[in-house]
Amino acid sequence: MPPASVFRVATRTPHDVSGLAKLLDSGACQAGDVLAAIGKTEGNGGSNDFTKEFAIASIEAELGRRGARTDHVFFIMSGGCEGVMSPHVTYLVRATVATGLTLGVARAARQPPQDLGRMAQVRTVADLVRRAQHDAGIGRSSDVHLVQVKCPTLSPIEIGTARARGEQVVTDDPARSAAFSRGAAALGVAIALGEVEEAAISDASILEDWTRYTRVGCVSSEIGTDWHEVMVIGQAADGDRYRLGHGVLEDALDADSARRVLAAAGLEAGAQASYRLAALLAKSEPDPRGSVRGWRHTMLSDADVGAFRHARATVSAVLASVCGDPGIYVSGGAEHQGPLGGGTLTVIAERQ
Amino acid sequence: MPPASVFRVATRTPHDVSGLAKLLDSGACQAGDVLAAIGKTEGNGGSNDFTKEFAIASIEAELGRRGARTDHVFFIMSGGCEGVMSPHVTYLVRATVATGLTLGVARAARQPPQDLGRMAQVRTVADLVRRAQHDAGIGRSSDVHLVQVKCPTLSPIEIGTARARGEQVVTDDPARSAAFSRGAAALGVAIALGEVEEAAISDASILEDWTRYTRVGCVSSEIGTDWHEVMVIGQAADGDRYRLGHGVLEDALDADSARRVLAAAGLEAGAQASYRLAALLAKSEPDPRGSVRGWRHTMLSDADVGAFRHARATVSAVLASVCGDPGIYVSGGAEHQGPLGGGTLTVIAERQ
Amino acid sequence: MPPASVFRVATRTPHDVSGLAKLLDSGACQAGDVLAAIGKTEGNGGSNDFTKEFAIASIEAELGRRGARTDHVFFIMSGGCEGVMSPHVTYLVRATVATGLTLGVARAARQPPQDLGRMAQVRTVADLVRRAQHDAGIGRSSDVHLVQVKCPTLSPIEIGTARARGEQVVTDDPARSAAFSRGAAALGVAIALGEVEEAAISDASILEDWTRYTRVGCVSSEIGTDWHEVMVIGQAADGDRYRLGHGVLEDALDADSARRVLAAAGLEAGAQASYRLAALLAKSEPDPRGSVRGWRHTMLSDADVGAFRHARATVSAVLASVCGDPGIYVSGGAEHQGPLGGGTLTVIAERQ
Amino acid sequence: MPPASVFRVATRTPHDVSGLAKLLDSGACQAGDVLAAIGKTEGNGGSNDFTKEFAIASIEAELGRRGARTDHVFFIMSGGCEGVMSPHVTYLVRATVATGLTLGVARAARQPPQDLGRMAQVRTVADLVRRAQHDAGIGRSSDVHLVQVKCPTLSPIEIGTARARGEQVVTDDPARSAAFSRGAAALGVAIALGEVEEAAISDASILEDWTRYTRVGCVSSEIGTDWHEVMVIGQAADGDRYRLGHGVLEDALDADSARRVLAAAGLEAGAQASYRLAALLAKSEPDPRGSVRGWRHTMLSDADVGAFRHARATVSAVLASVCGDPGIYVSGGAEHQGPLGGGTLTVIAERQ
Repeated sequence: MPPASVFRVATRTPHDVSGLAKLLDSGACQAGDVLAAIGKTEGNGGSNDFTKEFAIASIEAELGRRGARTDHVFFIMSGGCEGVMSPHVTYLVRATVATGLTLGVARAARQPPQDLGRMAQVRTVADLVRRAQHDAGIGRSSDVHLVQVKCPTLSPIEIGTARARGEQVVTDDPARSAAFSRGAAALGVAIALGEVEEAAISDASILEDWTRYTRVGCVSSEIGTDWHEVMVIGQAADGDRYRLGHGVLEDALDADSARRVLAAAGLEAGAQASYRLAALLAKSEPDPRGSVRGWRHTMLSDADVGAFRHARATVSAVLASVCGDPGIYVSGGAEHQGPLGGGTLTVIAERQ
Repeated sequence: MPPASVFRVATRTPHDVSGLAKLLDSGACQAGDVLAAIGKTEGNGGSNDFTKEFAIASIEAELGRRGARTDHVFFIMSGGCEGVMSPHVTYLVRATVATGLTLGVARAARQPPQDLGRMAQVRTVADLVRRAQHDAGIGRSSDVHLVQVKCPTLSPIEIGTARARGEQVVTDDPARSAAFSRGAAALGVAIALGEVEEAAISDASILEDWTRYTRVGCVSSEIGTDWHEVMVIGQAADGDRYRLGHGVLEDALDADSARRVLAAAGLEAGAQASYRLAALLAKSEPDPRGSVRGWRHTMLSDADVGAFRHARATVSAVLASVCGDPGIYVSGGAEHQGPLGGGTLTVIAERQ
Repeated sequence: MPPASVFRVATRTPHDVSGLAKLLDSGACQAGDVLAAIGKTEGNGGSNDFTKEFAIASIEAELGRRGARTDHVFFIMSGGCEGVMSPHVTYLVRATVATGLTLGVARAARQPPQDLGRMAQVRTVADLVRRAQHDAGIGRSSDVHLVQVKCPTLSPIEIGTARARGEQVVTDDPARSAAFSRGAAALGVAIALGEVEEAAISDASILEDWTRYTRVGCVSSEIGTDWHEVMVIGQAADGDRYRLGHGVLEDALDADSARRVLAAAGLEAGAQASYRLAALLAKSEPDPRGSVRGWRHTMLSDADVGAFRHARATVSAVLASVCGDPGIYVSGGAEHQGPLGGGTLTVIAERQ
Repeated sequence: MPPASVFRVATRTPHDVSGLAKLLDSGACQAGDVLAAIGKTEGNGGSNDFTKEFAIASIEAELGRRGARTDHVFFIMSGGCEGVMSPHVTYLVRATVATGLTLGVARAARQPPQDLGRMAQVRTVADLVRRAQHDAGIGRSSDVHLVQVKCPTLSPIEIGTARARGEQVVTDDPARSAAFSRGAAALGVAIALGEVEEAAISDASILEDWTRYTRVGCVSSEIGTDWHEVMVIGQAADGDRYRLGHGVLEDALDADSARRVLAAAGLEAGAQASYRLAALLAKSEPDPRGSVRGWRHTMLSDADVGAFRHARATVSAVLASVCGDPGIYVSGGAEHQGPLGGGTLTVIAERQ
């Protein structure tokens, strides 16, 4: 893949492509050069959130109207803009000169249901990460700053069919299968990048051994997808338009780590900055132990507002207060992505 | 009123008084000495949130079981523990020696419906604040660090009756009457403390002129109450067990101001602290202009999760990330309490 | 307009057009002959429900792919499929022979903001209804069985601009403006059909005099629309494929009236039926008096679930239990559409 | 147990005992004679619904104020008054003369965690039902018209502890344990009443073999309880003040079965009735197959409103439309209580 530029565009509704249209009309980039679209949409982020599909369909239609094909575009839309988190889409677009930012993509059809949430899935994802890293032309794993994964879930029908065939799927609960899939994919990232030894984990580690995790993966499960898709983003040898940094949040309130990651990307609080925020992506989760810093939280027992909504509201508020910018991407479901109760964080800064 | 001590107690449910019982059993304070209870309960914070009443009834029953009367106790319970905000009650208890913290209380029966949300209410509250400040023995307004007000709302029946009598109430919408009542009460605090000149405001200022506000008031509307109740908390001349500070948040992400208020109370980040957090109370609101720092927010258009829930989740996350402690009190409805989109903040620190 | 046929199609998601595609592929009708699409989509029915737009965009794309224009199609999508109400779209399609069902459409650009919710809007809608009835070729008002109206609301920006110009809009609350718009439009229907004398009502009647209402109107407010659109559906002189009936529900539990309307359309419980249900459309509302049949309801005070969601769940359950079919259309917001606490009901039956 | 009378009392809030106070003040019954209180409270019915405990605490306090003991009172409070279902409490009170209605109660401490959701629990409940039936003095099972069961759930701590001990609990998911507990308890009722042969079921039947169910059980799981409690209500040989009937709903829309049960208790639509409704209790569930009468429902995929809330709104609307009375008790969680997708129904009628 070639070098890439980053354009962050606010949206007024899930299907608002006026910002994209303006960007394309300005000549800053071409419809055919869009490589990826990473967005937050204002749905509930749950199983009946259709804002993600609506955003993707609208972007595809806009690009299509301009004669561009879109089947290669890597789309990640995450529903749920709680609190200050502001709906937006970040476009990664092919650049004609070196920018310092590179990306690579790899895809594979999903495996049989019984492989989901197990080592077979871990290895599949690890292989895709290696391929995407190669596609990005990144030699050293330390130059990888984001591994974005889209992974499948088990539907009620798949669970029933597998059971009828005598296959043992990892769980009978579709919602739980999403967590297993994210967890296995995250461990796949960790193995590919050398963060965890493959020999150190087994089926039993997944959603159990929380000491094993990736510091750079960002995994989204997608109900209904038949694919694993991986995008690797990293620092290229050439170009200095973009500087990247990444790290983990130890818990939902870990502003200190956020400051360190921002600093690593050239963004220091109060500094006379030559770089500005281009994109911030993080994972979050309601701490499954039921408390944060010794105080009970109620995210898990709230029957009115989903736990992920609470977690996204919290982590996006903390991160936005640190970087001063609500146009950020915080997604829920951080299994094996950062330590338990925490999450991963990637920052892209742009020279100004 | 005498000097007071502060005890912050985590709760496991709205009606959990085991922490209070343990505190009383320990001899640290006596049931008859409880002056105020300020708590966050894990309801939705809306019109069908009964966790506040349940908490109060449970505390009253526990104190009653120990032979104490409770009709003088100042109760403020705020529903809604979104995100990391942890359910707890802070008890203010009569102390036998000077602590540096003093409080005073004043009450008045509510006025006729047509006065609500107008200058008549402003003046009533201003008068109560002056009386409570006197009761607290605080001479200078600059020593007042929190004015907590409970104010009434208009019920559908009151609105209908007033209209039938030909009285013009400030609004026909019960929910809106709560905002008017909070706004008028806040301006009453501002006048009593000399923050705003009475001549500078009129009926038309309420919920309109957002340049007028208190920096120290914290107002809660209570559906069904027939009272105005005011509690003033401040720094006493004698004693150094407690240090207080207050200020305003300019917006929902204003971590800098929070750090300044913490520092004013002797709590500085990273410092070798001789004081620790005893209580933090803040008001929050979804910015009615629909954006924060130039980015659209979706709190006001979310038909699934109330705007106040979004705002409390956000502000409590920011404040908890600054002070490192989720046992804080963030309440919704900051009309004329701090600048538009922001809120007030009070910190009580205790010598350790 | 020509005679029309009715095709009711279940949907699996808001953007599922596979049923429409199958219908068109079957040759039962042509893409270019679609006149109207009336659907229920599985959003929350509130201000952040984008499922309606997604459904419309998806249908337009499908028809467009088949070479049909869609700008004349009358779309009504109603969000909120609570309880048993099942997501579906009912297509009204041009027929080549007389069917007994006819429809007509009329549109007008919206008026200035200060006219909304007032007699000016009432008269505009009345005029559109007369035009649409004429377009449908229906001579007698008693042959009109459904008047579907789409009407605008006031946005916060419009309210602010009008106030800045010194114009007095009917309300400062955008949500309330939707109710005013529906109420005025409903009274416009009533006047056009001779149900209410124009002289009997004035600005003051709207959302106040609940004894005035239409028995046949079904009004939907649309945030952001710049149009009034009216569709009249009725019984044509020729053809007996469809039989229509309409009436009002006296309250949310009025199964008896529902049975009478079904019977009027040829659908009687237990009867050896020669007709079957083709479509059922109804309006619902949470009774604003706070009770149903003498018992308090909690729809209006539930801060977690919107009142319209409660009302749609209730009325759709009652109607589905009467007609035995959950593929029905129940929409919220029944101001001046049927008596207070009730709503209107239209049934289309098809010979089998 | 003696004969009992039935008093149904509307409540204005979960803690409103004014209706109870009025009843007791009227002399119609004595505080010490209250045997059971069965109520609906206006919470969300989920894991953070505290309205049930608040109602019980308030009733206990009111009875206590009047000198009555309450530890023997059988309390069942069910949260969630969706749609038209109206908050109320039905009191069963000791009568001095034969009324035709009798009840009996039995209790047992809960078993070890690994027994929950298995045959051990089935047998425990079956035994309790037999004891309660005996306590009620009911000889024939056909005279039993309601078996109300309260059963425990597994907490996250219990699940963790059991796993640490090497015990295999039936599920690792606390929410799922509630369903297992209700299902096992329901099968216990079925065995005790001869509806199902014990030999016909095994551990594997629970939440699997939906052809096995009770037609008369109404089971509520209670988070945190350490008890199984069973109340049997039936028709006594002597007295005709009350007539009882019961049956099952085949699905959520089964108005016909409801009419039959009402008729069996002497309540026929349109009839010159000598009896009137005293109480109606039913179980409901969102059909786990995802459809009702061939149409997809969205109760299970709605991330904003819980599936049980949808189901209660639906079934209460259907039943209230049949009996004309919203003061009814419809509870969620009908595993093995009526056929899949349906539920049980009990009616108590009183001579007027």
